[in-house]
Amino acid sequence: MEQATVENVQLLPAKNDDHGGVVVELEEHMDSDVFLTLLKTSLSQWTMQGKKGVWIKIPIRLVNLVEPAVKEGFCYHHAESDYVMLVKWIPETTSTIPANASHRVGVGAVVLNHKREMLVVQEKNGPLRGKGIWKVPTGIVDVGEDICTGAIREVKEETGIDTEFVEVLAFRQWHKSFFEKSDLFFVCMMRPLSFDIQIQEVEIEAAKWMPLEEVAAQPFAQKESLLRYITDLCIAKVERDYSGFSPLPVTSGVIYLNKRDLN
Amino acid sequence: MEQATVENVQLLPAKNDDHGGVVVELEEHMDSDVFLTLLKTSLSQWTMQGKKGVWIKIPIRLVNLVEPAVKEGFCYHHAESDYVMLVKWIPETTSTIPANASHRVGVGAVVLNHKREMLVVQEKNGPLRGKGIWKVPTGIVDVGEDICTGAIREVKEETGIDTEFVEVLAFRQWHKSFFEKSDLFFVCMMRPLSFDIQIQEVEIEAAKWMPLEEVAAQPFAQKESLLRYITDLCIAKVERDYSGFSPLPVTSGVIYLNKRDLN
Repeated sequence: MEQATVENVQLLPAKNDDHGGVVVELEEHMDSDVFLTLLKTSLSQWTMQGKKGVWIKIPIRLVNLVEPAVKEGFCYHHAESDYVMLVKWIPETTSTIPANASHRVGVGAVVLNHKREMLVVQEKNGPLRGKGIWKVPTGIVDVGEDICTGAIREVKEETGIDTEFVEVLAFRQWHKSFFEKSDLFFVCMMRPLSFDIQIQEVEIEAAKWMPLEEVAAQPFAQKESLLRYITDLCIAKVERDYSGFSPLPVTSGVIYLNKRDLN
Repeated sequence: MEQATVENVQLLPAKNDDHGGVVVELEEHMDSDVFLTLLKTSLSQWTMQGKKGVWIKIPIRLVNLVEPAVKEGFCYHHAESDYVMLVKWIPETTSTIPANASHRVGVGAVVLNHKREMLVVQEKNGPLRGKGIWKVPTGIVDVGEDICTGAIREVKEETGIDTEFVEVLAFRQWHKSFFEKSDLFFVCMMRPLSFDIQIQEVEIEAAKWMPLEEVAAQPFAQKESLLRYITDLCIAKVERDYSGFSPLPVTSGVIYLNKRDLN
């Protein structure tokens, strides 16, 4: 009979993770009080089992379950538009919960044709809107997207030009780009595979091939500005065989390094 | 009299942002129903004013206000341990709400002494625990911290060694490192300024200066592994003047580039 009682204890559905913790992914609608009872019972069980981090992923349609979880000592870990991930560290020892993502990753694409003209755009939105500034196509790398793939995609989307990735010429780190988060911006050298421009109407006001020296001569490209570095790097690449970082396979992901100097 | 009525309308405290939207930072405890009424009235006002994105930052102690905000059409944008940021795009036009942070940023520090020995550690936690593998000190860059500063801090914390930053030798991009997020790992060359090791007991099992060739000869450093690339890059730096990316000031932040090739 005791055995039967133990088996009847209701717990939240949880999977073990690789770090001695458990992950709960809620999917079914549930009354807040029912959830609170299940959570309390499950926490006792996990504590007895010596579990460390407890993760609860709550889809936005189950938002009523966020408040009870917080009342049981959970904190937010991260959120995307349709869910919030909460976490609680059970042991007395120092938490080894991994940090949240801190950086957004952007790319700027340097595309030069055989006439020493650079592919440039004017943006319809953002801080440069209406200022007549010609700049390289830029964009945000999607979650899970390689920098080199993101650069090819952004050029295609904004200008219709097909390119292949050559190398990363430089990167910039910038803080508090939005709220408290930081930003890494990769300047990518690309080789054009097509030349007829078709602009993306929503984001782009105009696009054209512009002589490199004219891009550099814009007042906006003053000393220590990003655009000035971009044009200087492009000139160094064309005239002096500047060596950036090229992608190579590594067991986990892609490594970018100075291939010429390594070999 | 009409004027007086209008002035008496209670709205949520909001600040305009630079993109035609408003930001609400909630601080005072509030009943959920009171908040819901204020939110509905404020949304009508903002809609009439042609506002675009509406941001609401809710500290975790006011978790009772998350559910009413979601019911009024807000989505999550991001969260840190002590708050969640919600957002709603009012206009009919396509949302230009910026993407959430997608990457965590890590550093690995390559520190070599004058005897061609590399500073290496064995970790107490994580996947390499108990495997006897000697690796370079690594760590996560804090939000708002420069890569070069983070590398100096991690070496000091783990081994007690003071260093100065030389350059980024390479970087690796890796996806789904935790949940759906990605990871950028910067391999940093550092010059040691002190040599007596004092290990950090919580994270580090052991630390020592190890001949570079012995680090490279470990079975763990097989072809295409990150550790193999790190030792190869270090040898290229010492023997063949490999050129990585050095930091330079740029109007917004720090740019890392191949200074030797640029000049």
